[in-house]
Amino acid sequence: MSDKNIYLFGGGSAEGAGQSREILGGKGAGLAQMSALGIPVPPGFTITTEVCNAYHARGRRYPEGLEEEFHAQLAALEALQGRRFGDLEDPLLLSVRSGSAISMPGMMDTVLNLGLSRESVEAQIAAGVDPRFLRDCDRRLVTMYGDVVLGLPHDDFEAILSRQRSAAGVESDAELTADDLAAVTDAHLELIASSGTPFPEEPLAQLWGAVAAVFDSWNIQRARDYRRLHQIADDLGTGVNVQAMVFGNRGPDCATGVAFTRNPATGQRRIYGEYLINAQGEDVVAGTRTPLSIAPTDGSGGLAADFPEAYAELQNVCDVLEDERKEMQDVEFTIEDGKLYMLQTRDGQRTGAAAARIAVAMVEESRIDSATALERVEGEQIAQLLAPVFDPDEKRAAIEDGRLLATGLAAGPGAASGRIALTAERAAEMAAGGDVVLVRDETSPEDIVGMHASVGILTSRGGMTSHAAVVARGMGKPCIVGASALAVDSEAGEVRVGDRVYREGDEISIDGTAGEVIAGPLAAHPSDVLDALLSGEGDSPLISATRQLLAWSDDSRRRAIRANADTPHDAAVARALGAEGIGLCRTEHMFFEETRLGWVRQVILARRAAGRTEPLARLRPVQQSDFEGIFEAMDGLPVTVRLLDPPLHEFLPREESAIARLAGQMGLTRQQIEDTLESLSESNPMLGHRGCRLGLTHPEIYAMQVEAIVRATVALARRGLDPRPEIMVPLVGTEAEMARLREQVVEIVETVLAEAECELEIPIGTMIEVPRAALVADRIASHADFFSFGTNDLTQMTFGYSRDDVASFLPEFVEKGILAANPFATLDVEGVGQLVALACERGRSQKPGLKIGICGEHGGEPSSIAFFESCGLDYVSCSPYRVPVARLAAARATLGYGSELSSGL
Amino acid sequence: MSDKNIYLFGGGSAEGAGQSREILGGKGAGLAQMSALGIPVPPGFTITTEVCNAYHARGRRYPEGLEEEFHAQLAALEALQGRRFGDLEDPLLLSVRSGSAISMPGMMDTVLNLGLSRESVEAQIAAGVDPRFLRDCDRRLVTMYGDVVLGLPHDDFEAILSRQRSAAGVESDAELTADDLAAVTDAHLELIASSGTPFPEEPLAQLWGAVAAVFDSWNIQRARDYRRLHQIADDLGTGVNVQAMVFGNRGPDCATGVAFTRNPATGQRRIYGEYLINAQGEDVVAGTRTPLSIAPTDGSGGLAADFPEAYAELQNVCDVLEDERKEMQDVEFTIEDGKLYMLQTRDGQRTGAAAARIAVAMVEESRIDSATALERVEGEQIAQLLAPVFDPDEKRAAIEDGRLLATGLAAGPGAASGRIALTAERAAEMAAGGDVVLVRDETSPEDIVGMHASVGILTSRGGMTSHAAVVARGMGKPCIVGASALAVDSEAGEVRVGDRVYREGDEISIDGTAGEVIAGPLAAHPSDVLDALLSGEGDSPLISATRQLLAWSDDSRRRAIRANADTPHDAAVARALGAEGIGLCRTEHMFFEETRLGWVRQVILARRAAGRTEPLARLRPVQQSDFEGIFEAMDGLPVTVRLLDPPLHEFLPREESAIARLAGQMGLTRQQIEDTLESLSESNPMLGHRGCRLGLTHPEIYAMQVEAIVRATVALARRGLDPRPEIMVPLVGTEAEMARLREQVVEIVETVLAEAECELEIPIGTMIEVPRAALVADRIASHADFFSFGTNDLTQMTFGYSRDDVASFLPEFVEKGILAANPFATLDVEGVGQLVALACERGRSQKPGLKIGICGEHGGEPSSIAFFESCGLDYVSCSPYRVPVARLAAARATLGYGSELSSGL
Repeated sequence: MSDKNIYLFGGGSAEGAGQSREILGGKGAGLAQMSALGIPVPPGFTITTEVCNAYHARGRRYPEGLEEEFHAQLAALEALQGRRFGDLEDPLLLSVRSGSAISMPGMMDTVLNLGLSRESVEAQIAAGVDPRFLRDCDRRLVTMYGDVVLGLPHDDFEAILSRQRSAAGVESDAELTADDLAAVTDAHLELIASSGTPFPEEPLAQLWGAVAAVFDSWNIQRARDYRRLHQIADDLGTGVNVQAMVFGNRGPDCATGVAFTRNPATGQRRIYGEYLINAQGEDVVAGTRTPLSIAPTDGSGGLAADFPEAYAELQNVCDVLEDERKEMQDVEFTIEDGKLYMLQTRDGQRTGAAAARIAVAMVEESRIDSATALERVEGEQIAQLLAPVFDPDEKRAAIEDGRLLATGLAAGPGAASGRIALTAERAAEMAAGGDVVLVRDETSPEDIVGMHASVGILTSRGGMTSHAAVVARGMGKPCIVGASALAVDSEAGEVRVGDRVYREGDEISIDGTAGEVIAGPLAAHPSDVLDALLSGEGDSPLISATRQLLAWSDDSRRRAIRANADTPHDAAVARALGAEGIGLCRTEHMFFEETRLGWVRQVILARRAAGRTEPLARLRPVQQSDFEGIFEAMDGLPVTVRLLDPPLHEFLPREESAIARLAGQMGLTRQQIEDTLESLSESNPMLGHRGCRLGLTHPEIYAMQVEAIVRATVALARRGLDPRPEIMVPLVGTEAEMARLREQVVEIVETVLAEAECELEIPIGTMIEVPRAALVADRIASHADFFSFGTNDLTQMTFGYSRDDVASFLPEFVEKGILAANPFATLDVEGVGQLVALACERGRSQKPGLKIGICGEHGGEPSSIAFFESCGLDYVSCSPYRVPVARLAAARATLGYGSELSSGL
Repeated sequence: MSDKNIYLFGGGSAEGAGQSREILGGKGAGLAQMSALGIPVPPGFTITTEVCNAYHARGRRYPEGLEEEFHAQLAALEALQGRRFGDLEDPLLLSVRSGSAISMPGMMDTVLNLGLSRESVEAQIAAGVDPRFLRDCDRRLVTMYGDVVLGLPHDDFEAILSRQRSAAGVESDAELTADDLAAVTDAHLELIASSGTPFPEEPLAQLWGAVAAVFDSWNIQRARDYRRLHQIADDLGTGVNVQAMVFGNRGPDCATGVAFTRNPATGQRRIYGEYLINAQGEDVVAGTRTPLSIAPTDGSGGLAADFPEAYAELQNVCDVLEDERKEMQDVEFTIEDGKLYMLQTRDGQRTGAAAARIAVAMVEESRIDSATALERVEGEQIAQLLAPVFDPDEKRAAIEDGRLLATGLAAGPGAASGRIALTAERAAEMAAGGDVVLVRDETSPEDIVGMHASVGILTSRGGMTSHAAVVARGMGKPCIVGASALAVDSEAGEVRVGDRVYREGDEISIDGTAGEVIAGPLAAHPSDVLDALLSGEGDSPLISATRQLLAWSDDSRRRAIRANADTPHDAAVARALGAEGIGLCRTEHMFFEETRLGWVRQVILARRAAGRTEPLARLRPVQQSDFEGIFEAMDGLPVTVRLLDPPLHEFLPREESAIARLAGQMGLTRQQIEDTLESLSESNPMLGHRGCRLGLTHPEIYAMQVEAIVRATVALARRGLDPRPEIMVPLVGTEAEMARLREQVVEIVETVLAEAECELEIPIGTMIEVPRAALVADRIASHADFFSFGTNDLTQMTFGYSRDDVASFLPEFVEKGILAANPFATLDVEGVGQLVALACERGRSQKPGLKIGICGEHGGEPSSIAFFESCGLDYVSCSPYRVPVARLAAARATLGYGSELSSGL
């Protein structure tokens, strides 16, 4: 540790001006910086974080020489202020505040007015200081010391204060007289003494006690747990700031306040904050008095009217700080006798909208460059801008009204409100009469039409990548999954939550951004920004800023962005939002439209391959027309079509009535259909007969699909368009699978192209989603033109987690820190990431130019995108509505910013 | 390729005596070796396998100079024999035979009597050669040439011969006259000519035609497929053997035969084989005449009586060959005019019993050392010795009778016969009345008691590591799974196979070694060898040999052998068969006994952790007594106990009636039980809430188990025994899981030991069965005392194959060569093996002395054991009845012999 451990600041200079946040803590560094800039700051000194570490390393003893240095700096501070700490008649009063590089719950915060004592209070009153003011300061010191330093229950102090208010027949502390306050202080002193440790009347003992309390709070359980959970090093340590008091509670020309240099909700460039006249900082927090707006939007007076000089100074300080720190600031200040003192400055928290506007504005103001602007806006903040929202006040009122029914996983951002439908069929029917929210235990591919018809989806089971969650995000619909408090009984036509019962048709609202299920209706507003991006029309400062950020992103990023889209509509949405191709076009959803489903079932129920010829021949032209629509929407851009992936039983009905109906349609007995169902049923369908395994055992299905793809391509090319299909084989795990399927596919492609007398290159590749495929990626690469990581399945198999079943333990694992994050939301770099990196390396060792992308859910998740950047992937593919998020995240990854870890739950 | 391409042999010497099988092919090398040893061999020459490769590489043209070399060697052969090939009156006749280093179906085999022509036959008859003999030779040449060289259908030739027999009014070809045979030959020549390619009358054309046919047959589809499936290199190539004819069909002092130097079924040291008087080799194969035994067991004459000199010579040849080749030989011979000629020698195929006896006998005879003996016996051959068997003749007769109902996967070796039971309960009831075979679609843990009560298990579904297969092998019971022709209808009380119906109680027999299901009873005999190993009593040459081999194995192997055993009985069996510990003691089976199951269900159905206390307190002492029994059976040896692994829903009933009964017992409503079932049900239980995930969310269950283990240990230690438990946590995938569970376990271990005032070391380790665990094995190793690979689950997750569902495609994949073997039977070294090797390396990089074993099904599979040897595993653990197999396989692996690949299906 260094020789210098305590840094003085004040009087227009600061010893610690060149020192980092790591040494001084965030608060200390801010104070030093302000002081060095000549901003009015009450002088003081900062004990470094290194002392904190040394203190704990030495068994809670200060390093040698520290006490001498402390007293020397205290003497310097006394000299600056012209007052002596501990003086009886005119004492220097001090505050002690903690300050780590990262703020942390559980850490000791603040003790004010240190340096008072019974003796000194009496002496000052005798010397003419306002008794009410002094009694109030004394009362605050004793309370804070007992509560914060000695750890006695805050409520016990409040109870005494409350009793005194009753006795005095007043409502607020402000109305208590000096004598009232003296009585309170006496009672507080008794309370403290009765705990076994009396309040120290000796000022230096108060000061050292407060310093030790800050250091000790670094190592309490709650702070340690927080650090482990957030992967913060234990040796970061906290600093301690000892600072001369200034008083916002000394009279009507005093005040205290907090301010943002810009509006943290909207980003507007205008000071935003609140203040209280004749108060200390804790009064703002306590909420007993309503603070005033610094710069009211109604144009009324505000701080400018009450304290014109201080307001002008504050404006100036804000400008200087933004010039210096290049960031929107969150400041605390006190006005004493009309003069402004700054107590804190730090970079301000903000909403997504504010982040976007501020970042762009700061570039326009030449404070930062566009790369820095991209550093300032996280992908999830862009996602916020695109989601529909409830009016925050209305939602808060509803929750206060007891309408919060349940919480679940926030699986699809946005807000939706509508009538409950308990089956997909009912949802489709009811949708004609207004908005519907589909509520199910879980959804399956048969529910697609009903999901389309609904404004939001709510399930009692499933995880972040359950069917409901994936499809809802793909559709851009608000969705909550795993809301396990709901008991969905579709037969009884009701949803039970505890003893409350909601029937189909009752209104419900879901906030898919927050995971909150609310009884009754709430008004949801679509996102203006999304509308503007989709239409290319509309304008507002936020819309302009968003467009600007995305434009800079496109200039900066190295990775291409594609979308996962299965329909011409989704493809068009993706393209409007900036997608440069389709990375995953699933073909199974196309099989669920009612007429087609009949043919699909004929294919499945045919006892011999020959019986499949006719229904496949019917499916072929409709698949072709599906592909034509998608290829046209993506004219000139690549479209990766995945051949059929799910197991065949997903296409057969489960209910007795549907089986009977199907038997009638097919001219089969119910027993025959049940036998087929039985023979196709699987214990673990995720690990069953699907993907390329079906392609090898039932080659005629893939043959039909490939023929449809190639014919669609030929048809569009003849119309002068530029279709660019890529054929993707799912679930490959061995070289032989890929080699044989490539052979099968090539043969059909060549046959159709030869018949059409057409020359086209159609790349053939595979998904890497089985762990074994990653391990033998070099061998597979010799038969593949591209890889696309299916990180959903890869995560399932690498962890051995079924994404449909993890809701029973995964949230608990994340909460307890067994998992750092939900691996289905944020790629598990430590484990699954090894397989991704390995497959990239081995694939390219075999085939240097191999194109590699990712089309799992992680393709739209910013911190995962950062990892994919490090692996050198060519593109990421995500839900259409996530494309803007991915564009920004990819740019941030290229610029090296995207390493933040989001928990994803 | 070398300068010399054709090697002459005969007359007591051989140019190729020093050349390898790879160059000359197996047949050519044998002929050269015999010739050099002075064994009577008709002279000839061998064209090397390198010529085959060159021929194909040059687009089916012979390398330059080959024809000259061929004609020079032909001239040398003519000189040796004193006859000219193509001579009219006294021609040298030749045979052409293929000969690769590995014999291969589809390859051209033999053409005899080359060198005859119409003209020559007439000239020889005119010169006084026996016309009947000559016409017969001519007929054989033309038939073979048309069939084998030209590829015309064999049946067409047979039809002509058959018509001639009818016309002549005789039964056998031997009764046809010279004229009859001439007529047949004429008709055959016409048949050939009508195909477009007339039979070549020119002898050299015949000879070159036959040579080309051998080379061409190397590359036909069937041979290529076979090579790919068996991973035989395409450039191995085949040799061609051209050899002077000797005739076993020249008269009554001629004969032809095949012999083994020892009995290939029993290993007895006595020539074993058959011969036909006055016949050519193909007559033995054709089966139209019944061959005679060379050395009849009834002591009657045999070859010694018919041909005393030739028999003495044959005995001498057998001894010389065994001395030289140090192996039991399979030879072909011809006797011409009383003189013996050897045509082939090769190492003989044999049963497991013969392999064991011969290997041990050859050591006793000082022909080989004990290591070589171990090289000669494969693990699966030992497995054969331990399985019960049907009488082969009785089974063959049953199959010929049409009683073969179905085939399935040979999941548990051995034979069983009994009455059909369609539920586990019925099996348990019926077992009192005699042997029962349990027949189900598939089995589940609830069926354990019924499986115990049955002599064999047959399922219509499932793969080699389905529940039925694993449990049956564990119990050492014959088992067939995936017999998909069976439609099991337990409600109707019947099994349907096509239109045949079998009812519960009907008799059925299963051969679990062959995978054959046979209607009706068959007598099964237990294995004498198994009985002897278990009891330590009994003796026979085979039992002695087996004991000797296992003793040598134990001296040679580096790996320890443990068994997977869950009961004191299984532990005792394992120990008797040589297990040196238990590598996997599953605890879930202990939960299924009826009283306990009630308590287990109370634990599951308790709504709060508190409600679990009482039933867990009841389970604890019974678990303790389970462990005491097992630890006592394995006194002094390690026992690895796996904490509870399966998901909780496995312990709840499914049927309505059972649910109602349970509700009554528990004082709950049916709805409450159904709600619990619903909340616990999983889409993919394999990837669900089980293993250590349960241990973390329901710590009280593991706590009970650990307490039971430690108390059992203490109790036994107090009795002066030496219990050595090891606690194994299943399904760990992350460092945090292992770290926390270790903490939980250690706390309980220390508490119980402290209470008991006992000092014991109980290692705590984990299974490596989730791919992620292998990837982060270094991190996990820092909290684990040992690793045990759970290769079943590791294979499932690495491939993405559910072992319960693979029956629908895996057999097809293996058959088509998409997979080289069933990865659940033979470890997939290429993929899963990477993870095993990686985990070993990373685990030991973190903790150099880390003990590592394997307790998956692969622990008893020889080629997998060879791979585990290469990874440096400390032990393998397998089913108790596989322990002798594993002992041998481990020795073979240590000696470097175990690399044979078994397909495992």
